[in-house]
Amino acid sequence: MYIPTIADMFAAHTRIKPFIHRTPVLTSEYINSVAGAELFFKCENLQKAGAFKARGASNAVFGLTDEQAARGVATHSSGNHGTCLSYAAGRRGIPCTVVMPRTAPQAKKDAVRGYGGRVVECEPSTTSREAVFAEVVAETGAEFVHPYNDHRVIAGQATCSTELIAQVDGLDAVIAPIGGGGMVSGTCLTISNFAPAIKIYAAEPEQADDAYRSFKAGRIIADDAPNTVADGLKVPLKDLTWHFVKNHVTDILTASEDEIVDAMKLIWKRMKIVVEPSSAVPLATILKNKGVFAGKRVGVIITGGNVDLDKLPWQ
Amino acid sequence: MYIPTIADMFAAHTRIKPFIHRTPVLTSEYINSVAGAELFFKCENLQKAGAFKARGASNAVFGLTDEQAARGVATHSSGNHGTCLSYAAGRRGIPCTVVMPRTAPQAKKDAVRGYGGRVVECEPSTTSREAVFAEVVAETGAEFVHPYNDHRVIAGQATCSTELIAQVDGLDAVIAPIGGGGMVSGTCLTISNFAPAIKIYAAEPEQADDAYRSFKAGRIIADDAPNTVADGLKVPLKDLTWHFVKNHVTDILTASEDEIVDAMKLIWKRMKIVVEPSSAVPLATILKNKGVFAGKRVGVIITGGNVDLDKLPWQ
Repeated sequence: MYIPTIADMFAAHTRIKPFIHRTPVLTSEYINSVAGAELFFKCENLQKAGAFKARGASNAVFGLTDEQAARGVATHSSGNHGTCLSYAAGRRGIPCTVVMPRTAPQAKKDAVRGYGGRVVECEPSTTSREAVFAEVVAETGAEFVHPYNDHRVIAGQATCSTELIAQVDGLDAVIAPIGGGGMVSGTCLTISNFAPAIKIYAAEPEQADDAYRSFKAGRIIADDAPNTVADGLKVPLKDLTWHFVKNHVTDILTASEDEIVDAMKLIWKRMKIVVEPSSAVPLATILKNKGVFAGKRVGVIITGGNVDLDKLPWQ
Repeated sequence: MYIPTIADMFAAHTRIKPFIHRTPVLTSEYINSVAGAELFFKCENLQKAGAFKARGASNAVFGLTDEQAARGVATHSSGNHGTCLSYAAGRRGIPCTVVMPRTAPQAKKDAVRGYGGRVVECEPSTTSREAVFAEVVAETGAEFVHPYNDHRVIAGQATCSTELIAQVDGLDAVIAPIGGGGMVSGTCLTISNFAPAIKIYAAEPEQADDAYRSFKAGRIIADDAPNTVADGLKVPLKDLTWHFVKNHVTDILTASEDEIVDAMKLIWKRMKIVVEPSSAVPLATILKNKGVFAGKRVGVIITGGNVDLDKLPWQ
């Protein structure tokens, strides 16, 4: 297991700069007054392809040799990683295949295709996904880019916090949602090197709290098919992300489905930005744990804005 | 009639800087590819109180003498101007009264009160509004700040384009929605002084096209109770705004209700920002008049983001 270093983060940032946005940090006086803290929202919903995963995917794609690149990239993801890998591959002009359950939302399939990627459908089971994915790789020789348990991906995600701490002085804490732990691991990589006094929190839905339970138990616990409105956060930790979480995270906080939806609506209403449910989990946990953050300056990673505008969770 | 000058814009910018955001300019490669032009969206939906009207309202409020200020400010508006005047008055710590039809949405009344303003209800008719407003002014001695036909307000709105042309080089055109013409007049004031080669377009709903008809006729034509989803754009031009429109606007373009809603949804979906229907009218007209903007660099004023999240127009 290769653990990415801060040098990998620097190399990633140089490599991906032409293909990503340096996203803005937004604030809301109203939300600060409600939270009793100063919150600085790093808006990766305004990132290319609508999610921070454009960073890690771009780092993986543009780090390939020409020979590797010619065979393309592949992944399995019905979420933002598939879309963002397709985006990055499209920018390099190489093939990208995304294996997705046939039951995945049409919008997700369209998003991959919109950037030029190919969708290969599998049955909605791990067995089918693995079998179909193996076929794809055997056929194409494509490079597998895992959604999060991949040092190239983590080094790419780490560039987000590098920007954040350059944009906002004197942060006391940073909080990001946790699913598989890619963004949290990247945050740990950057913060533990550059600003070790900043505390790192992870935020997770109560209904998919495997990282929380892993953190408390001291070993990876994987949920069996968790269900939450924060659909980007259903996946479990893996060895590489567990390494960062167990060594650098101060605490993992959880929020209920209603709290997540309320926080999401609050962000839309007061900050005028479109964020997906996963992005609202940190604010939900801040509002639920005001004592932890009272009077603090807190960086909040808004991870993405890819949401079905015809099916909003408060309707 | 006092016509504000570029010196008034400079004074306004200095005066209001502590109370407004220098809003970001966002772009979307996808929308550019659809439009066949390079669009630069000046995001006043991210402005204080969610609309550009915080600029003009702040300029009016902070330009008052202490004696005037002590008596407070008043306006009639069921839209963003009322909210923004309440915001600005709250920042100065002076009273603000907004006369509003009792039938106005609860959310609009709550928004005024949320910033500390007082709502006084009238019947939904011009006669009642004028009578109730006259009573308020007689009682309080408050300074009337008109939503747009006011040189202080126009000088304030003019600061938006001053920022835009500093943020984006080489614009060929700027387009803004037109209702009463406050933002368009401010745009004219700045652009005609600083960058007269930039063409100024105004965008209006077909169903409230009084500015369009005025422009073609060469005199102010006021609609009788127009109805459009772009509820910020129902009001008519007045003498001061007509002065700017007739002298500096290149053309006024119109879009249908469906085109406005489609453009609004496109902005939400691809740019991940919450914009109100009025803000989408410029993009709707650009997509309808591609020949006018083909290959051009166009500044697009996103005027506000105050929308009822429980009643979206595509649902």
